[in-house]
Amino acid sequence: LFASVFSRGRVALEVSDAAWLKAMLDAEAALARALARANLVTAEAARAITAAARPDRFDTTELGRASGATGTPVPALVQALIRAVPEGAAGAVHLGATSQDVLDTAMMLVAKRSVPVITDDLRATAETCALLADRHRGTVMIGRTLLMQAMPITFGLKAAGWLTALDRARFRLSEVFRTGLPVQLGGAAGTLAPLGEHGGDVLRFLAEELGLVEPTLPWHTLRLPVIELGTALAGASAVLGKIARDVSLLAQTEVAEVRESGAGDEGGSSTMPHKKNAAGAVAILGCTRRVPGLLANLLAAAEQEHERSAGAWHAEWETVSDLLRLVGSAAQWARELVGGLEVDALRMRRNLDASEGFWLSEHVTTLLTPALGRLEAHERVRDAAFRARASGGSLLDALFDEPRSAAALSRAGLDRDKALALDPLSYLGSTQTWIDRALAAHRKAGAE
Amino acid sequence: LFASVFSRGRVALEVSDAAWLKAMLDAEAALARALARANLVTAEAARAITAAARPDRFDTTELGRASGATGTPVPALVQALIRAVPEGAAGAVHLGATSQDVLDTAMMLVAKRSVPVITDDLRATAETCALLADRHRGTVMIGRTLLMQAMPITFGLKAAGWLTALDRARFRLSEVFRTGLPVQLGGAAGTLAPLGEHGGDVLRFLAEELGLVEPTLPWHTLRLPVIELGTALAGASAVLGKIARDVSLLAQTEVAEVRESGAGDEGGSSTMPHKKNAAGAVAILGCTRRVPGLLANLLAAAEQEHERSAGAWHAEWETVSDLLRLVGSAAQWARELVGGLEVDALRMRRNLDASEGFWLSEHVTTLLTPALGRLEAHERVRDAAFRARASGGSLLDALFDEPRSAAALSRAGLDRDKALALDPLSYLGSTQTWIDRALAAHRKAGAE
Amino acid sequence: LFASVFSRGRVALEVSDAAWLKAMLDAEAALARALARANLVTAEAARAITAAARPDRFDTTELGRASGATGTPVPALVQALIRAVPEGAAGAVHLGATSQDVLDTAMMLVAKRSVPVITDDLRATAETCALLADRHRGTVMIGRTLLMQAMPITFGLKAAGWLTALDRARFRLSEVFRTGLPVQLGGAAGTLAPLGEHGGDVLRFLAEELGLVEPTLPWHTLRLPVIELGTALAGASAVLGKIARDVSLLAQTEVAEVRESGAGDEGGSSTMPHKKNAAGAVAILGCTRRVPGLLANLLAAAEQEHERSAGAWHAEWETVSDLLRLVGSAAQWARELVGGLEVDALRMRRNLDASEGFWLSEHVTTLLTPALGRLEAHERVRDAAFRARASGGSLLDALFDEPRSAAALSRAGLDRDKALALDPLSYLGSTQTWIDRALAAHRKAGAE
Amino acid sequence: LFASVFSRGRVALEVSDAAWLKAMLDAEAALARALARANLVTAEAARAITAAARPDRFDTTELGRASGATGTPVPALVQALIRAVPEGAAGAVHLGATSQDVLDTAMMLVAKRSVPVITDDLRATAETCALLADRHRGTVMIGRTLLMQAMPITFGLKAAGWLTALDRARFRLSEVFRTGLPVQLGGAAGTLAPLGEHGGDVLRFLAEELGLVEPTLPWHTLRLPVIELGTALAGASAVLGKIARDVSLLAQTEVAEVRESGAGDEGGSSTMPHKKNAAGAVAILGCTRRVPGLLANLLAAAEQEHERSAGAWHAEWETVSDLLRLVGSAAQWARELVGGLEVDALRMRRNLDASEGFWLSEHVTTLLTPALGRLEAHERVRDAAFRARASGGSLLDALFDEPRSAAALSRAGLDRDKALALDPLSYLGSTQTWIDRALAAHRKAGAE
Repeated sequence: LFASVFSRGRVALEVSDAAWLKAMLDAEAALARALARANLVTAEAARAITAAARPDRFDTTELGRASGATGTPVPALVQALIRAVPEGAAGAVHLGATSQDVLDTAMMLVAKRSVPVITDDLRATAETCALLADRHRGTVMIGRTLLMQAMPITFGLKAAGWLTALDRARFRLSEVFRTGLPVQLGGAAGTLAPLGEHGGDVLRFLAEELGLVEPTLPWHTLRLPVIELGTALAGASAVLGKIARDVSLLAQTEVAEVRESGAGDEGGSSTMPHKKNAAGAVAILGCTRRVPGLLANLLAAAEQEHERSAGAWHAEWETVSDLLRLVGSAAQWARELVGGLEVDALRMRRNLDASEGFWLSEHVTTLLTPALGRLEAHERVRDAAFRARASGGSLLDALFDEPRSAAALSRAGLDRDKALALDPLSYLGSTQTWIDRALAAHRKAGAE
Repeated sequence: LFASVFSRGRVALEVSDAAWLKAMLDAEAALARALARANLVTAEAARAITAAARPDRFDTTELGRASGATGTPVPALVQALIRAVPEGAAGAVHLGATSQDVLDTAMMLVAKRSVPVITDDLRATAETCALLADRHRGTVMIGRTLLMQAMPITFGLKAAGWLTALDRARFRLSEVFRTGLPVQLGGAAGTLAPLGEHGGDVLRFLAEELGLVEPTLPWHTLRLPVIELGTALAGASAVLGKIARDVSLLAQTEVAEVRESGAGDEGGSSTMPHKKNAAGAVAILGCTRRVPGLLANLLAAAEQEHERSAGAWHAEWETVSDLLRLVGSAAQWARELVGGLEVDALRMRRNLDASEGFWLSEHVTTLLTPALGRLEAHERVRDAAFRARASGGSLLDALFDEPRSAAALSRAGLDRDKALALDPLSYLGSTQTWIDRALAAHRKAGAE
Repeated sequence: LFASVFSRGRVALEVSDAAWLKAMLDAEAALARALARANLVTAEAARAITAAARPDRFDTTELGRASGATGTPVPALVQALIRAVPEGAAGAVHLGATSQDVLDTAMMLVAKRSVPVITDDLRATAETCALLADRHRGTVMIGRTLLMQAMPITFGLKAAGWLTALDRARFRLSEVFRTGLPVQLGGAAGTLAPLGEHGGDVLRFLAEELGLVEPTLPWHTLRLPVIELGTALAGASAVLGKIARDVSLLAQTEVAEVRESGAGDEGGSSTMPHKKNAAGAVAILGCTRRVPGLLANLLAAAEQEHERSAGAWHAEWETVSDLLRLVGSAAQWARELVGGLEVDALRMRRNLDASEGFWLSEHVTTLLTPALGRLEAHERVRDAAFRARASGGSLLDALFDEPRSAAALSRAGLDRDKALALDPLSYLGSTQTWIDRALAAHRKAGAE
Repeated sequence: LFASVFSRGRVALEVSDAAWLKAMLDAEAALARALARANLVTAEAARAITAAARPDRFDTTELGRASGATGTPVPALVQALIRAVPEGAAGAVHLGATSQDVLDTAMMLVAKRSVPVITDDLRATAETCALLADRHRGTVMIGRTLLMQAMPITFGLKAAGWLTALDRARFRLSEVFRTGLPVQLGGAAGTLAPLGEHGGDVLRFLAEELGLVEPTLPWHTLRLPVIELGTALAGASAVLGKIARDVSLLAQTEVAEVRESGAGDEGGSSTMPHKKNAAGAVAILGCTRRVPGLLANLLAAAEQEHERSAGAWHAEWETVSDLLRLVGSAAQWARELVGGLEVDALRMRRNLDASEGFWLSEHVTTLLTPALGRLEAHERVRDAAFRARASGGSLLDALFDEPRSAAALSRAGLDRDKALALDPLSYLGSTQTWIDRALAAHRKAGAE
């Protein structure tokens, strides 16, 4: 019922029951080929198993029903696979492996196939942010701290911040994709006893067959690969949530500095025809808000007993699927959201101008400091701000209306006329530098 | 693929997409009838809407696809429902309501239909625990603290503890079932403006139609009902996890004091034909380990903005379903597990006897205290325990081999011969009292 | 360094090391008296122990240093207490008890002393909300959904919602205070073996001595009391976080409908003298945001082994202190915040009027429906809203500029002149009803 | 009261209030020097500020009291620092910076000083594991899956697994130490406006002065550095928790394959003098069990608004301290625990021998497969195992007592006499390979 919200984009397919089944069968087939390369089974057997390991021959519902007996669907799958191959190949099926070998390897395959979908969305979102950062490098707006108007920034700087964080999150996920997803193969207690001295070879071949990493040793109860996958996803989620929060706040009716575009009814309300919600931002937050607890579960599940765990491992499967699905959905939403973001530069400027120059307070404090000392300067400006707010006037007027401040400002070369010309554009500090650095870092990240 | 593990028993059906759809339609139909009772729409319209609100006429996949536009499937559902009723009834559909009214009410209905399934399993499990507590009130075993053998208890006392906790968890859930699941009806911003002064009446009628509680006022962003549902489920989960942990530890090969029975292959291993796993305990832990993080997400999502939230609310839906499903599965597993638990009284006694009387250490310390003083008594026993452990002998022998201790024990009326007759059954303190109290409390809980 | 933020108000004292030490000593002294009442030790011994159990005689730093040896400070405390009493009373110290009995009972005492501080702050905050609800029952403002302006409400309704949730959260906490905090007494493995058949009596006496609840049986590894305490605190946290989020959003510069008052520099900024932050709301969120994960830890720790747990129990101590401290600080902040909240009714009205009548969209849709049918009415209003927004005009003008809508509105008795007089006050539906219900429920809650 | 448990070792000092104060002062002093290098303040002023920024001149209690006004102790600290410097230097204090610049930089400094303490403990623990892996590469024991005896492994393999995971966790933390801890400097809204075009230079100088990383741009609301620190700590925690869980299970009275050594009373019980608890393992679990929720809080807090957050940021401070302290304590405990671990090789062998050859089940299944086919072989062994368990006999006897199995075994070259000689040492598969790989990887990790 909520598919377009939480199972959005291609990732949902990659974590479906069908995808898990395919991954388990791929693991079994690759194992057979790895065993053949190590001369432990015949090439014919490996070919037969590979040929038989086609998802359409198996029934996820029935496997689901069978999963209760042993806690996993693997024994039932192995039995079905044995029945699906010629008798001569039966002995080669699942040889030396334990259920967890297949399920863990499948989990890593599911991740291997899902993560690029996510990083692709992150990259596309970052590209758009880079464009926004450059295009809006001079689009001045009021920066906000603790939800209050503070000082001028530009929208380009905001986009540059998003960009930097997206690139970092993508880097982490790409790193996991490249070096963090190992095959699992250890057999019943991690020794691969039935394979005699060939365990190391079969492990290497299996990793090669599947394009996964070869671990130092079986990691049945050493779950850092799962944790690092989860934390990389959580990092991406954190960034997407931050962007969505910014957009939802900037899109508030009273702020109205950005707007999500969208075809047709996107974001419409069932009862209030006039409403145009920030549907993408809301959906992203609906996804990202579910990530912290899921990751906590994954972390708590890392305390696994002995050579194979009694329950903690089981807690990982749906959790990993959920994390991939939710972060993937959020990334897909973010790509659409940022891709269609309408930036209202005029409104940004209007909101800034409406602030009656309060944003200048830091600046004039600096100007007053040589004459008044630091602490008094701060106090004078604060008092002027309170007077201005009470009377509805501007900060500068309040300062010039007060003789001691007026004199000090004059001494700093600022009189009432000049003050009128004070332009937020002249008070942006390192804004352009930060944008340039973010764009340069992004180009470098892309080149890698 | 993991259905029999994590979607076990009837709860899974009650939280399915089909169940949510039915609940949403029930909410729409009940709203129409409530409006009719308040004379805001015609009885004919209400009848027509009730007749049309049949799940088989709607397509969850299509609604899922439509959910992306507004973040919920409700607008699409309302449109479909309008199309499914005679033109004269169209204006009565969803009148005054907002999407969240329908979705929140549906969530409460889903809970209302799921919770009794869970409490039923909890009650059945508690019944069995009561039987076990009574039957094994004298089945002596070694109690264990910090995973070490400590002092004698009986298995009946352990079962009595499980019983007490199960009853308490069930009480909380029943309380939520009876008084904690309110309808939601507030319209766009909580005022039910389109219903004029009739809002209060319609709210009451809606609650009556659905058998849900009538809230004081709309709770669109006041989420205690969701939190109290979640925490009651988490309480049940905590108890089930504790029982499963105990069973998994008692079933260890080296302990072997209990065994899960199960037909056929239950708990078998794909690679090790000799193994008989504690499959139920493992599955329960696989469920309960996922609850803490899910509840944390629910709690974090309670910080909802203004009159309706931008994302936090969305994070609740699948989370509540998951909590019901997982706790329901764990409860179903527990009912099976405890129902079929084989208690090996002989092995319990053997394990106790094999402890070489170390469990007597507290007792003999008490006996030594009058003669030696508290601190020295403690030291003598500790030293004797170390010597006994090193030599493989019994604690009492080590004490009698040491003159000062031997003299002190004599003075307390204990010589080596009498000591041999020391029976753990005589050192069970309030065990029977606790069991009686637990059984009495259980009977009282059942009578309510 | 952050004491005034996270250790605010009296709760911080109640969870300090000193408070824990006092609670542990109170538990030991009460145990001695309970033993005396059961004639297991002399009244003299009990008096001596009670007299010796004064916190100023013990050194928390040294006890902290000793806690590493056994994982708890209790053995060292017991030894120190034994040394502090006359020799004849030494045997009566800690008799029959285990470390966990003392620490769990102390934890419940700490809770017993902390919770009333919190409920007192919650009650005071609720009282203020009740005043605000009544005073501002007609203070019209725009309601906001998904952070967008939606429909008129009154500030009184908002305050009534806060009130209802605060009362509910307080009720839960009070319930825990009254019936949810049991003493712990089971001895080494829960049987109270050294007390022979007197365990039940001593348990009852201990509960009476301390004003705590008498449990059915020892709950060393049955942790629902801790969980229910934690979840009641988390419920309060959820409500406080919601209020703080609302205030922080309403206080935004662009919205400015409420303001936190505060003496002197409260909420000032170090760099921007003009800024007046919503310091209380920020601090509350800084507290409440830390609660979900802490509760998750508590829940995960409920899976405790056998008769006493190896680590999970230990994870509770600082967590419970943190929960009490943070929720207590948030409650104290909330009391100050709501107590000093400045409500700008004029600005609320201005913000509503500035919305160009978009809030009427639902209302006019209803008016158009008889003539145009439900779906077309919705479409016409939506299109008019888009046109109005594009041109900067009002929704009603856009509707009257379009002949078919204008005709339909006329038929519903609304022409352009009358429309101008449409008053949000006439479109508040059940607002007054909800406020009345909230106030009535609050009075009833207070009377209990 | 619990200091030796949760604030163990040197990390506790590095996260104390005193350490935070020092870090904040170091940040202020370094900023002054950086400003001087950029010719924005005089070298004299920088020297004066550096000289004044000594912790002993400031009062953490008073700063804590002042923190309530603005939510942080920084404004009060800055005022105090201004008062502590000659008037001419006052204008140079905190120039251009905002409170968050100082607090975030201090947080990174605290991490920079804490992490090496933790990685040092992890490295020492890993070294010991490497020794254990090598020394016990042939110390055969029963591997356990789902808490049941499964197949032979060696204790060296178990230690090699711990080693691999410890090295990986340490690598992540070291990476964070080297490249993940950036200074913060952005001023009020991230633009460093008061520093004109010199912001980039000052940022670089500040990073150099403090030995922290230079970020691309200010990260006030882009919290990946905090998240990556937290997740690296959580990874270490996961590994430590796994080791502690293994030790606590292996140390169970009934298993008794390892024992924590410890001087004096370590692990003693207050009531049961005979008990020797696995105090280190328990304490580690008491620490690590608190990490998942803390990390979840950190992740949830990453959704930060605009240019500076209203509350989420505040939720980070104590959380980061707690994470460092708890993971640091766990690492210190682990170093002691593994360093003093007593491995009882004899008992390991005895436990294995007592398993009546059930561990051979996989092996004999393989031997039976050519003659009986895969599925029948599995069934025969399972049935024999059930018979053997029922009668208390050995698996092999049960198989040889059944003609069809006996014949099949004969055909595979195994008769009853030979079977007696079956040695677990001959059925360890890749055990030595895995150990060698773990040691090689460890040496390589050390060399880096």
